[in-house]
Amino acid sequence: MIKILNIHDKDFETEFNTLLARANTDMDSIIPEVLKTLQDIKQRGEDALLDIVRKYDSWNPQTFNDLKIAEEDTFNAYKNLDSKTKDALQIAHDRIYTFHAKNAPKGFIYHDEYANMLGQNIMPIQRAGIYIPGGKAFYPSSLLMNAIPAKVAGVKEIIMASPTPNNHINELVLAAMYLCGIKEGYKIGGIGAIGMFAYGFGETKWSKDSLFSHTKTTQKGFKKVDVITGPGNIYVATAKKLVFGEVNIDMIAGPSEIGIIADSHANSDYLAIDMLSQAEHDSMASAILITDNKDLAKEVAQKIDTKLTHLMRKDIAQKSIQERGAIIIVENLKQAAMLMNAIAPEHLEIVTQEPFSLLGEIKAAGAVFLGHYTPEAIGDYLAGPNHTLPTGGSARFFSPLGVEHFCTRSSLISFSKQGIKNLANPCAILAETEGLEAHKLSVISRLDSMKD
Amino acid sequence: MIKILNIHDKDFETEFNTLLARANTDMDSIIPEVLKTLQDIKQRGEDALLDIVRKYDSWNPQTFNDLKIAEEDTFNAYKNLDSKTKDALQIAHDRIYTFHAKNAPKGFIYHDEYANMLGQNIMPIQRAGIYIPGGKAFYPSSLLMNAIPAKVAGVKEIIMASPTPNNHINELVLAAMYLCGIKEGYKIGGIGAIGMFAYGFGETKWSKDSLFSHTKTTQKGFKKVDVITGPGNIYVATAKKLVFGEVNIDMIAGPSEIGIIADSHANSDYLAIDMLSQAEHDSMASAILITDNKDLAKEVAQKIDTKLTHLMRKDIAQKSIQERGAIIIVENLKQAAMLMNAIAPEHLEIVTQEPFSLLGEIKAAGAVFLGHYTPEAIGDYLAGPNHTLPTGGSARFFSPLGVEHFCTRSSLISFSKQGIKNLANPCAILAETEGLEAHKLSVISRLDSMKD
Repeated sequence: MIKILNIHDKDFETEFNTLLARANTDMDSIIPEVLKTLQDIKQRGEDALLDIVRKYDSWNPQTFNDLKIAEEDTFNAYKNLDSKTKDALQIAHDRIYTFHAKNAPKGFIYHDEYANMLGQNIMPIQRAGIYIPGGKAFYPSSLLMNAIPAKVAGVKEIIMASPTPNNHINELVLAAMYLCGIKEGYKIGGIGAIGMFAYGFGETKWSKDSLFSHTKTTQKGFKKVDVITGPGNIYVATAKKLVFGEVNIDMIAGPSEIGIIADSHANSDYLAIDMLSQAEHDSMASAILITDNKDLAKEVAQKIDTKLTHLMRKDIAQKSIQERGAIIIVENLKQAAMLMNAIAPEHLEIVTQEPFSLLGEIKAAGAVFLGHYTPEAIGDYLAGPNHTLPTGGSARFFSPLGVEHFCTRSSLISFSKQGIKNLANPCAILAETEGLEAHKLSVISRLDSMKD
Repeated sequence: MIKILNIHDKDFETEFNTLLARANTDMDSIIPEVLKTLQDIKQRGEDALLDIVRKYDSWNPQTFNDLKIAEEDTFNAYKNLDSKTKDALQIAHDRIYTFHAKNAPKGFIYHDEYANMLGQNIMPIQRAGIYIPGGKAFYPSSLLMNAIPAKVAGVKEIIMASPTPNNHINELVLAAMYLCGIKEGYKIGGIGAIGMFAYGFGETKWSKDSLFSHTKTTQKGFKKVDVITGPGNIYVATAKKLVFGEVNIDMIAGPSEIGIIADSHANSDYLAIDMLSQAEHDSMASAILITDNKDLAKEVAQKIDTKLTHLMRKDIAQKSIQERGAIIIVENLKQAAMLMNAIAPEHLEIVTQEPFSLLGEIKAAGAVFLGHYTPEAIGDYLAGPNHTLPTGGSARFFSPLGVEHFCTRSSLISFSKQGIKNLANPCAILAETEGLEAHKLSVISRLDSMKD
């Protein structure tokens, strides 16, 4: 049975602090190990990558080329899909695309009172590496959620990597690659994939040919990417953290989680199955319901128990519910919102009489699902917003994966004669306070030689 | 003398690859040391922080309270400013504010064909830590550039930290704090400041009182922040990288740098002093000019030499120019743009007959300064855009510090009955392909019990 807590319980503070600490994985202790593997990849390149595949995926690639997914295979996988699945993927693709087109950052330009021009330019990054977990399960939806924002941004080179135990790759992932137009993919996972993306190997130096030849030369080796996105286990997360700066990354993500705020208007069947849909992901996943209604709390707890027994992924879901699930009874919805803000959940469902009126109280949540007809699972696949979301309370400072992860902003400044005339002096004063003489001279020099 | 390279030189490829590798600092090797200090802060809290100040800043605080900057001191510092400096700071403040107000990310809402609502909500983060380097030099401008985007975002708690050798703090930094309305500041630098921001110490647990008491209780200790921004040395950069995930950070930044593309229309005096204004920052800073005009190349090289001899910070600038400066002669401006894209400079000046026509060729640069009257130094202080910019080639994937670093996006989804009716089935198909049964049931359950 899921535990039911009441804010007036004697030990509520302790229990709630345990829930808040749900994401406290000890990443620090595995840093040396992950760093060692990354350094091995940096030094030995291809050979290190092949060794990793041999060790973790139990097959024996001979060269880096063996890791490459054939474009033909992606086409065939797509072609062989039954029409219902094909349609479902297309609906998901199109809805995700529509949302992210609106999510794209925008440039601007303005002129100040001296006719100086100021602005911001948005540019796609050149090369993105998207990591799709594999192994125990396959997630074609993750491919869509990572590839589509990159496409919207205008990234030309999008490269996929995913572990393929025994050299077996899921057909749905291949089909999703084709649907998204991803032509380059590699069968490698974990620290190996992150190291490959971050450092590249082989001919990674700049070549003079690039100035003169207009034909693209065949790449020997693998060119490092600019950004790495996508979910993964703690080794992937730690590797991403360690290569941050060498490349950009989306976020450090942990186990999935849902928070639900509900009142007497909620349907207990819906709440129970929504909590289980989170719990079935991972025994480390967590599902927390906060309600002002004691009867609802009991009902949901009972229905979770009943529904659990029939699930295929019963063992995983049960462990998650027992160890990391909770139903919390509060006095009112305002308290529910305050507790939820402390949790800062990845997914938040608000299932109350007036869900939108509670939205203003919410300060941190990756994605918010409002009302009876918005199960969290709809957001995992095809609502439109991204399903790569901040976990473990990091919604306080991280945002959903978005087009901005695949773009850079660049500031634009163009001063007029009038502008430098009016602003050189205050600028020189500030440069002087910081003891930066050449800065001052650089600005003042424009005045010295000004003729008119 | 600065080195002059020609793309047709035999060893140009090698030389240029050396310039590209300008940022290859060995961060990995100091990770264990930085990690150890961070873990010490996590474990010993206040005592560890005090030890750090005693060791690196050579004074002897007795309690954490001794590190706190008195609000009164910021007011007095501001009051005591001469009017010219006060005006200059105000101009900078207002121009930076205007730019960042335009830079703020925007939310949206739309409805699809089934009247489902989808959207994105923008929220300020709760608590920001801004790090301002101190020690050798003081940078009030950095305080403005970090604090103002946080203010524009609507961050309520903005906390400053800066090292203060011998317990001496710069008056200009204090005045800038007052001007920006920053009321909380601490005299601690380096790994100490980053660890304090990332972990906090003292009463960091959630307390039940927060649900009931409306009066703010006095904080004992220091509450961790949500985001850490601001420049710093390699220890600060490494510490920021290691706490990434625990909090968000802006970027990993290294020594400052400028790239200039110029043709025969450029003024060699301007170019020379602009290059020196970058070189005077740091002997590790770099200044690179790329031009299609051999005479200009020679002129600028000579003028750098002449101007250098008169500079106060001559030794620093000279070392930077000799070891990390270069003038590259190309055949045409298109090649100049291609080389510059490989460099992806923090600052880029385009000083050609038609600077805007070259802008379209630029794929990566932190900030672009166009035309004769836009010295890079104007952007350091008061043009408006942020001066915290990606360095070392990371402009390929990082963006200038902006309001988005102090905000989160949150996705909004609210499905209608009509919406779930039409989309439950494709969603269920996708859930099934991933073997997530409860996801499928969660969506389908809404159909089962639908009455109308």
